[in-house]
Amino acid sequence: MAEHEADERTVPASRIWDPFLTARDRAHLEREPRTPKGAGTRPVLLLVDLYRWAFGDEPEELLDAIRTWPGSCGLAGWAALPSIQRLLAVAREQRVPVVHLTGLESVLRDDAGPPADAIARAPNPDAAARRARKYEIVDEVAPIAGEVVLRKTAPSAFFSTPLVSILQHFRADTVIVAGESTSGCVRATVADARSYRYRVLVPEECVFDRSESAHAINLFDMDRKYADVIALEEVLMYLERVGGGA
Amino acid sequence: MAEHEADERTVPASRIWDPFLTARDRAHLEREPRTPKGAGTRPVLLLVDLYRWAFGDEPEELLDAIRTWPGSCGLAGWAALPSIQRLLAVAREQRVPVVHLTGLESVLRDDAGPPADAIARAPNPDAAARRARKYEIVDEVAPIAGEVVLRKTAPSAFFSTPLVSILQHFRADTVIVAGESTSGCVRATVADARSYRYRVLVPEECVFDRSESAHAINLFDMDRKYADVIALEEVLMYLERVGGGA
Amino acid sequence: MAEHEADERTVPASRIWDPFLTARDRAHLEREPRTPKGAGTRPVLLLVDLYRWAFGDEPEELLDAIRTWPGSCGLAGWAALPSIQRLLAVAREQRVPVVHLTGLESVLRDDAGPPADAIARAPNPDAAARRARKYEIVDEVAPIAGEVVLRKTAPSAFFSTPLVSILQHFRADTVIVAGESTSGCVRATVADARSYRYRVLVPEECVFDRSESAHAINLFDMDRKYADVIALEEVLMYLERVGGGA
Amino acid sequence: MAEHEADERTVPASRIWDPFLTARDRAHLEREPRTPKGAGTRPVLLLVDLYRWAFGDEPEELLDAIRTWPGSCGLAGWAALPSIQRLLAVAREQRVPVVHLTGLESVLRDDAGPPADAIARAPNPDAAARRARKYEIVDEVAPIAGEVVLRKTAPSAFFSTPLVSILQHFRADTVIVAGESTSGCVRATVADARSYRYRVLVPEECVFDRSESAHAINLFDMDRKYADVIALEEVLMYLERVGGGA
Repeated sequence: MAEHEADERTVPASRIWDPFLTARDRAHLEREPRTPKGAGTRPVLLLVDLYRWAFGDEPEELLDAIRTWPGSCGLAGWAALPSIQRLLAVAREQRVPVVHLTGLESVLRDDAGPPADAIARAPNPDAAARRARKYEIVDEVAPIAGEVVLRKTAPSAFFSTPLVSILQHFRADTVIVAGESTSGCVRATVADARSYRYRVLVPEECVFDRSESAHAINLFDMDRKYADVIALEEVLMYLERVGGGA
Repeated sequence: MAEHEADERTVPASRIWDPFLTARDRAHLEREPRTPKGAGTRPVLLLVDLYRWAFGDEPEELLDAIRTWPGSCGLAGWAALPSIQRLLAVAREQRVPVVHLTGLESVLRDDAGPPADAIARAPNPDAAARRARKYEIVDEVAPIAGEVVLRKTAPSAFFSTPLVSILQHFRADTVIVAGESTSGCVRATVADARSYRYRVLVPEECVFDRSESAHAINLFDMDRKYADVIALEEVLMYLERVGGGA
Repeated sequence: MAEHEADERTVPASRIWDPFLTARDRAHLEREPRTPKGAGTRPVLLLVDLYRWAFGDEPEELLDAIRTWPGSCGLAGWAALPSIQRLLAVAREQRVPVVHLTGLESVLRDDAGPPADAIARAPNPDAAARRARKYEIVDEVAPIAGEVVLRKTAPSAFFSTPLVSILQHFRADTVIVAGESTSGCVRATVADARSYRYRVLVPEECVFDRSESAHAINLFDMDRKYADVIALEEVLMYLERVGGGA
Repeated sequence: MAEHEADERTVPASRIWDPFLTARDRAHLEREPRTPKGAGTRPVLLLVDLYRWAFGDEPEELLDAIRTWPGSCGLAGWAALPSIQRLLAVAREQRVPVVHLTGLESVLRDDAGPPADAIARAPNPDAAARRARKYEIVDEVAPIAGEVVLRKTAPSAFFSTPLVSILQHFRADTVIVAGESTSGCVRATVADARSYRYRVLVPEECVFDRSESAHAINLFDMDRKYADVIALEEVLMYLERVGGGA
């Protein structure tokens, strides 16, 4: 298999996580530099949890947004959206399979953490109306005919979904992960993709989080352990080179 | 089920992750305080990857240790070991089932990241001898008769192991996770435990990492999303109260 | 845990699979009689694939039915339906959790065997209209509010669904499996339930198949290896005794 | 992908399962003939549970063998062994990856059915000595360097093992399943392989069972639903054509 030439990548001089590292962490990195992991030739694009609950209806600062949308990531999601749209457009042009993930309403959500807790604290009619739309994928990146939509009950896109069967159906060897949150569902999806032995690319501009520090450090973790966290531009060049696979 | 009274827990005034958070992260936390998740009545103790590769043969500062043991966590592991021993001793006294995780040598390790990379860079006879011992669980917490030992090929203790069957065998509802690394196998195990709908406790003194920032922020993530990250003392009191289950 | 007293069960003098066994098979059984496996105290009822595709719109002999409904099980499904309704009614009375399984439309169905093949052979408008209703659960056993409905892409109800998380959510130790086909999705679900270490009961009158021999021998296999295949009456008595769990 | 030309296969005039089918089953088959499923270009060979427990130390009739080896398949295993050896030899020549499955000793075996029950009934020193060897793969098909050995706790080779990661590591699209028992671990492995969307070939002479009827009907089920059950000769020709993949 002709692999992506990982070592030709542009390595940025500084990374978003640098300010969060301690002096010893930086010294360790210098002695144990990461190895780019590379990509294969048959990518699939995963769009993780780009639903209303994470955006709200319009851009607002995080601390304002959570008054009506407790699961909001504030402006971070809206800032990432044009990059995600660009990624999605190129994937579609190149006929790369696209899989959208969103939540599954089920008895399990009752004990599934923040969203349910937040809902419980705001049981008014408007909140209920917002809640009813929470798993709707936002219009800007809505699925089109022929794309796969999977509903999940856990952070990872692989957990309790047919995603691994779908990747095998497409004979994929590489997954590109975009969406939210960097420290939650994106992170869990990336770790599982690597556990299943797919190559993983994370276009940095296309993932977002409500926490600045968790966003940065989870990018660091993923780049170090499981994936290549690279610029969107590099991912687009890769897609244009390999397309939907041989 | 008589649940652990989560709200009686002592909440520490400050947490290890506080210095790593941005001002906005702290403001967000104040408005969306976490809810303790509680524990059930049938715990199982998971000891994750307490093998030679993470310790080396004797305590050394991280930057020294990695010259001979590239996968070392430096002094962090040795500092955590007495706490883990104490946790293990109480679990054994209380007849709580114990499951030890270590690595499985397989064709898969060839592309599994840092350890293999590190080995490739040090192909001398001494390094080979160290490598041959890499998955040996260290003596201080070695399994005894009747305890389960599972070998894994991915970060999560659940991935490609019979752990979920074993938890059902024990009718467990709660897992206590100790070991390393906080940002790797502990984190992945905790996320999966929650995905399978177990309650999760992480005794803070009993997990460790080679990165200070990743250690802190992954504790933050786990405490926020999937688990109660609490003091060892609280976990011991819990174990003494519930024992090995009804 | 107070277990179901498996050895008090009425063992029928003859079983549906007896005529299909060879003389040597019978001699082997006499020397290695099966051991009843028993049940726990917290059951969940699984209703597998009771959708239109397996029934058609009205009772017809198998060889007639497949002209319009190629996935039909003929009269076998209609004959089982009153038994399944009775089982479901008792489960609801006893507040036993009910999980319904049906198919997930996806790119995967394209290579998923008989239904798609059959559809391809009958691409007329009426066939398309039938196909559009194929995964609708039939009215007689339709889900009601509070019951779980899961969609799957493979024979087993556990494969690529959150079923194991849901069983843990309910703290289940036992699954009761009804539906179709005995030799396909029921069999795969029963094997997985046992692999996850649940106790499994199969009420014989409540499962069905389009093949008489496969129905009989798969009941034999399940009873021998994974489950107790018993009379509906016994399952109802069990449900009335244990209810929805302690 | 250049697929195996499934429709060129020699279809035997009669199949081992024919005598076990009812008249109606045969009529149904005539109206709904099966479609060959074909194979891909990157096979992996799975050898399932070819351990001492299924063979005993020497060929004996089933009803004699079970007096000392309660898990024996009698002469069926010994009869299949030369065919399995031939299959393994060709796979090795063609550099097709080979994965051996055997059992994992664990707390779970205590409730895992026949073997444990049988052991419990024969707690003498000789039986204990035999039991200690039960999961040893027999010499005739023992793993060689570079082959993968996985230990499992459930019928399917995929359940709680890294098999699916290993298949992705090899970029496999096809699995060839040999071993025992047809109605147990082979069947469960084949169903899961199909669920994960691999193509599956079962060389008929290379699988065996202690039950004649279950052997025949499970071959029927697998051929109908999940796999192509074909002659060893055809599988060997296929392997010689595709080798270990592009």
